Parts: sequence; structure tokens; C-alpha cells
Amino acid sequence: MKLYDLDLSGNCYKVRLFASLIDTPLSIIPVDFVRREHKENKLMQLNSWGEIPILEDGEVVLRDSQAILVYLANKYGGEAWWPSEAHLQAEVMQWLSVASNEIQHGPNTARLIKKFGLESDYSLCLARSERILTLINDHLANNNWLAANRPTVADCAVYPYISITHEGGIDVDKYTHIQAWMDRITKLPNYISLL
Amino acid sequence: MKLYDLDLSGNCYKVRLFASLIDTPLSIIPVDFVRREHKENKLMQLNSWGEIPILEDGEVVLRDSQAILVYLANKYGGEAWWPSEAHLQAEVMQWLSVASNEIQHGPNTARLIKKFGLESDYSLCLARSERILTLINDHLANNNWLAANRPTVADCAVYPYISITHEGGIDVDKYTHIQAWMDRITKLPNYISLL
Repeated sequence: MKLYDLDLSGNCYKVRLFASLIDTPLSIIPVDFVRREHKENKLMQLNSWGEIPILEDGEVVLRDSQAILVYLANKYGGEAWWPSEAHLQAEVMQWLSVASNEIQHGPNTARLIKKFGLESDYSLCLARSERILTLINDHLANNNWLAANRPTVADCAVYPYISITHEGGIDVDKYTHIQAWMDRITKLPNYISLL
Repeated sequence: MKLYDLDLSGNCYKVRLFASLIDTPLSIIPVDFVRREHKENKLMQLNSWGEIPILEDGEVVLRDSQAILVYLANKYGGEAWWPSEAHLQAEVMQWLSVASNEIQHGPNTARLIKKFGLESDYSLCLARSERILTLINDHLANNNWLAANRPTVADCAVYPYISITHEGGIDVDKYTHIQAWMDRITKLPNYISLL
């Protein structure tokens, strides 16, 4: 199973982290992002959206880190990480949407601006980040994990960009419940860090 | 089963549309958005994020329209709308992320600016909308439905805001494959329109 990967990408890290947690080997294929290899023919044929990560598992080719997590959970991770019961799966799904929306357009974009020079509205990203971090922190005041009372793909989807918010100029020290949750994640068996 | 609802909201319409398609009755509870009823105690106790739609099904309370679609599909809609096979569910999931990310921050936000006076970067929304509409149109050149070769929650999640892009000043007439797909959706049994 191949992962077309960029080491610094939080979206790629989501996939590497989850694959490690479920002890599923990945063949990592580094993509030269600076040289825009993801916009060249070979990768555009796999993913015409011109984005990474891309997962290739035999005939199956997937884009979008949340979809890749769901695929890996269904195929290799099992019920523990992606519950089949309707209300529990929906709980997890709520957080996959948060990863695609509020995290992407808050902490992720703030980091792209500060670390990689993206031109975008930084104050808007800061306001969005503060809102979503507060909501997550409040949720974690009464929950050890984001959904279903156990570690799931929800945590794997949301954790990566929160763990590197400082690179976007955002201090997460004041969010004490997020700190404790991140600490729990780093103690999961087979946890790996971004780099 | 109660849906806390705003008639003009595309995210609420997603839920009403899908519930109708699977012939599942909803008790619609209109929320007075102008009076900010969704920020008042009663609804904040159901959803501290201060957003609608909210679905209440007995003990189960859910926010996020994508999560609600997945819940309804698992519980009432069945395999047809939310395939259990790993690669097919992941295909659908890719489009649920698109609904949360690209649609939300493209056509949805453009409409909020033009129709409801939201202050945001309109030219950015237009550029994002053009990109995502082109990608969807290209995909639909070779597919009748977004995923799994059949109507699924992917179509229900992506269709609502695309069907009202003109309210955001975006003309979808040039996207002929999107036009044909929208036409197929309106012909599904039990289809309902936004208003």
C-alpha cells in the first residue's frame, strides 16, 4: 500500500500516524512539493485535484485525508477506530467534518501563512482558530477522547494540525484540556510524531 | 425525530432532502435565526456550537449536516445510500469532506455574502467556487453520480449549495455535467426542493 507523502504536511501525517497506530505498513513515496511534483502528469493521473496525500492500495486510489482514514479503519483498523453503531459513527463523523472545515481553515491555514508564506487573511485564521480550539477544549473538559469514549479516527484527524499550531503563531498552552488530550495521544501504542 | 431547522439553510435542506428520499418522517422545528434563537440557552444546550441543523432522535443529539446524513443513512437509509464496503464508503467520504470544506468555503460563503450580507472576501469565494465546480463537472463527465455509481449521501451533501449558487452570483450554466446531474437528482423519488 503506497502513500504519496509530504513529510511536513499535517494531512499526510494523519495517514502515517493512523497507519502506525493500527500497525499497518505503508510504502512511503515522498513527493517533491517544492518542485510541484503533485501537479505533474504522473500524480495528476492518480489525483486530478493536484493534492496530497494520495493512497494507492491495489486498484483503490483515494484522495482526502479523512476519506483515507475511513478506508484504512474499515479495511485494517476495525470497529475500535471507526464504530459501526449509528450514533457513535455519527459522533466520529462530526469531528471528521471539523478536520475538513474548521481545522483546515483555522490552524492549518495560519501555519501555511506563517511557515510557508501563503497569502491569506491571518487575523481571520486566528479568530477561527481561537473559536475551534475553545470548542474542542470545552469538549475535552468532560471527555478523554473526541468521540465514542475511546481513541478513534476522530482524534487522528483533528490532532495533527493542533499539535503544530505554534508554527502558525498560535499558543495552545492555555487550552489545558487539549494539552492533556495531546499527551494521551502521544502515549498510545505505536504513536509516531510528525517528523 | 426532530430537526431544528432553518428553511433557507442549505445545510438544513440537506437533511430534509435526504430524510425525504429515504421516506423517513422528520418533525421540523423552525429556528428563528434572525432573532438568534440558535444562540439562546435552549438550543445551546443541545448544540453548544450555536449552529443548526440539530437532529434529536431520542437520546441522540447531533450537529453537523454531514454527520446527520451518515447517522440517518446508517439507521434508516441503509447500504444503498452509505455503502459499507471500504473503498466505496471512502469514495462517498471524499465528497462529505468536499461538502464541509470546498463547498462551505466556496459557493455557500459566496451566497452568505450576496444574499445575507456576510462580510468576507468575495473574490476568494468566487475563485474557490470556480475551482470546485470545475472539478465536480469534470468528475460528472464520466459519472452519473458522485460516488459508487449510484445516488448516495455524497450527492445529498454536495447538491444543496450547488443548486443555489446563483444566489451567490455564480452562474452554473456553463457546467453542463453538473446541470445534468442536478436534473437527475430532481427526478429521484421523493425529491423535495429547498423551499
